[in-house]
Amino acid sequence: MKILITIPFTEEQKKRIEDAAGENELIFTAPAQIKKDHVADAEVIMGNLPVNLIREAKCLKWLQLNSAGADTYCIPGILGENTVLTNASGAYDTSVSEWMLAATFALFRKLYSYYNNQKQRVWHDEGAVLSAGGACVVVLGLGNIGLAYARKMKALGSYVIGVKRHPGAVPEGVDELHTMEELEECLKRADIVAAVLPGTPETRHLMGKAQFAAMKKTAYFLNAGRGNSVDTDALYDALESGEIAGAALDVMEEEPLPSESRLWTAGNLYITPHISGGYHISVTLDIIADICAENLKHYQAGETLRNVVDRKLGY
Amino acid sequence: MKILITIPFTEEQKKRIEDAAGENELIFTAPAQIKKDHVADAEVIMGNLPVNLIREAKCLKWLQLNSAGADTYCIPGILGENTVLTNASGAYDTSVSEWMLAATFALFRKLYSYYNNQKQRVWHDEGAVLSAGGACVVVLGLGNIGLAYARKMKALGSYVIGVKRHPGAVPEGVDELHTMEELEECLKRADIVAAVLPGTPETRHLMGKAQFAAMKKTAYFLNAGRGNSVDTDALYDALESGEIAGAALDVMEEEPLPSESRLWTAGNLYITPHISGGYHISVTLDIIADICAENLKHYQAGETLRNVVDRKLGY
Repeated sequence: MKILITIPFTEEQKKRIEDAAGENELIFTAPAQIKKDHVADAEVIMGNLPVNLIREAKCLKWLQLNSAGADTYCIPGILGENTVLTNASGAYDTSVSEWMLAATFALFRKLYSYYNNQKQRVWHDEGAVLSAGGACVVVLGLGNIGLAYARKMKALGSYVIGVKRHPGAVPEGVDELHTMEELEECLKRADIVAAVLPGTPETRHLMGKAQFAAMKKTAYFLNAGRGNSVDTDALYDALESGEIAGAALDVMEEEPLPSESRLWTAGNLYITPHISGGYHISVTLDIIADICAENLKHYQAGETLRNVVDRKLGY
Repeated sequence: MKILITIPFTEEQKKRIEDAAGENELIFTAPAQIKKDHVADAEVIMGNLPVNLIREAKCLKWLQLNSAGADTYCIPGILGENTVLTNASGAYDTSVSEWMLAATFALFRKLYSYYNNQKQRVWHDEGAVLSAGGACVVVLGLGNIGLAYARKMKALGSYVIGVKRHPGAVPEGVDELHTMEELEECLKRADIVAAVLPGTPETRHLMGKAQFAAMKKTAYFLNAGRGNSVDTDALYDALESGEIAGAALDVMEEEPLPSESRLWTAGNLYITPHISGGYHISVTLDIIADICAENLKHYQAGETLRNVVDRKLGY
């Protein structure tokens, strides 16, 4: 079988894949240099191929994504009915949860206000700030990333409320678990609401006018999941009217954020360009290589793969 | 005996002090309203009275500071020879260590660069970042605050090296402990150097040209201890020449930082105006009230006070 790999692995990481692949043919290629006949012949593809190219993969039996989000590939008609889809869930936990931590503390400690003062050469005390110790943190979406952030905040002394779609046992590192039906009651208690939801029809505009209105005026919001889980017009209004204290977004409803968007200058809104994940910290690619090598062994042995995406749920 | 208190306690906190004071006379006053005859009569003062007023306290037997730093009051001639000096060490651990955490992650995740891009409406990936997971964190000064920061970073997956004046057992939350003699060897290994040293003659300009030169080009520096532990001319040069990657300072050699200082615009230097401690988070004043009440009981019972400052060492 032919295995096409478009993930920018190091030589050492490629070696791990090669060891797992045995006699099978491996084609490592940069995303910009992908050849159509390689795609057409491939039984296995590792990497987030552009959707127009994936349609050409007539022999594809298994697609291993390099991303945690899988929604694009779950749209009916993109993949063959029996093609298995796996994601890289687990690889981005540290990177994204640390971005969430960075955003949390930048908001709590008013670092952007102090930076604005610095540019004016102004030495001015901006007053009381929030502390992670004793803060009520509401995490929307309790996948690997949400849990990683929850556990970090709890280790720093916060009280953590998780909100997810399906009820279940309260995971370690979470103080309370609620379902989306109880969302607004949870939002009322939050000092910070951290969203890291998958992109599904159910999560679209989950945070809208009513949800921001439920939050305390002193509370913050951040989003590192999918841009469309937030109604950004409602967020803009909530920030401009002082209904919430501030927000940080790493993901947008439209990316790149158009230069004419009013979000760029919304009051107390801080924007990063979808960089919380990616390959920005070195451990991420290493974990993806592990997932790929492990799944390649499972695939050849006819075993169940790790990180299989439910294409109906979208994650 | 007369007890003068200039710390802005809440009514509930005042009640705790009153309960501890028994029949003794308590005078609560705002720092701006202090009367000279109250100072002259006071056997006990709680609060960082201006040095010129402290000289008038001819009956003073015990001064309880509201700060952790005590260096100003250790200068010979300020306090009577037998006056006991206690500080509020322990009250600022959470506040200062959380500022240190905020600064660490803001530097690691390049939040200020992204904020500058946002102001230009630019959606641009600034590349690789450092992760707390696996980072080597060197903490200079392992008092309560240094230890609190060390433990938070270790909980987030960092390898923590503590550097202090006196050798001793490796505290929980620290991977290695070294003395100042081994400082440069430690600096070479650091991804971030976090200083939280007391203000003493020995710590003056402890971080200078040679020390910044020992650091990696990719490493960051932060200071939340005393401004004069850093030679800011050397720091300025290290930043401008790219010898280190960036720095955050909450304390300066001269405070407020003069508006003409070139530090305001140094490359990748981020300044906050000595706000990491203070009463910026609510728990701080609560802990100070506890220290004051507890010490007041000890004082009346003739017992050893908590947080006694060694006036020769300065902390």
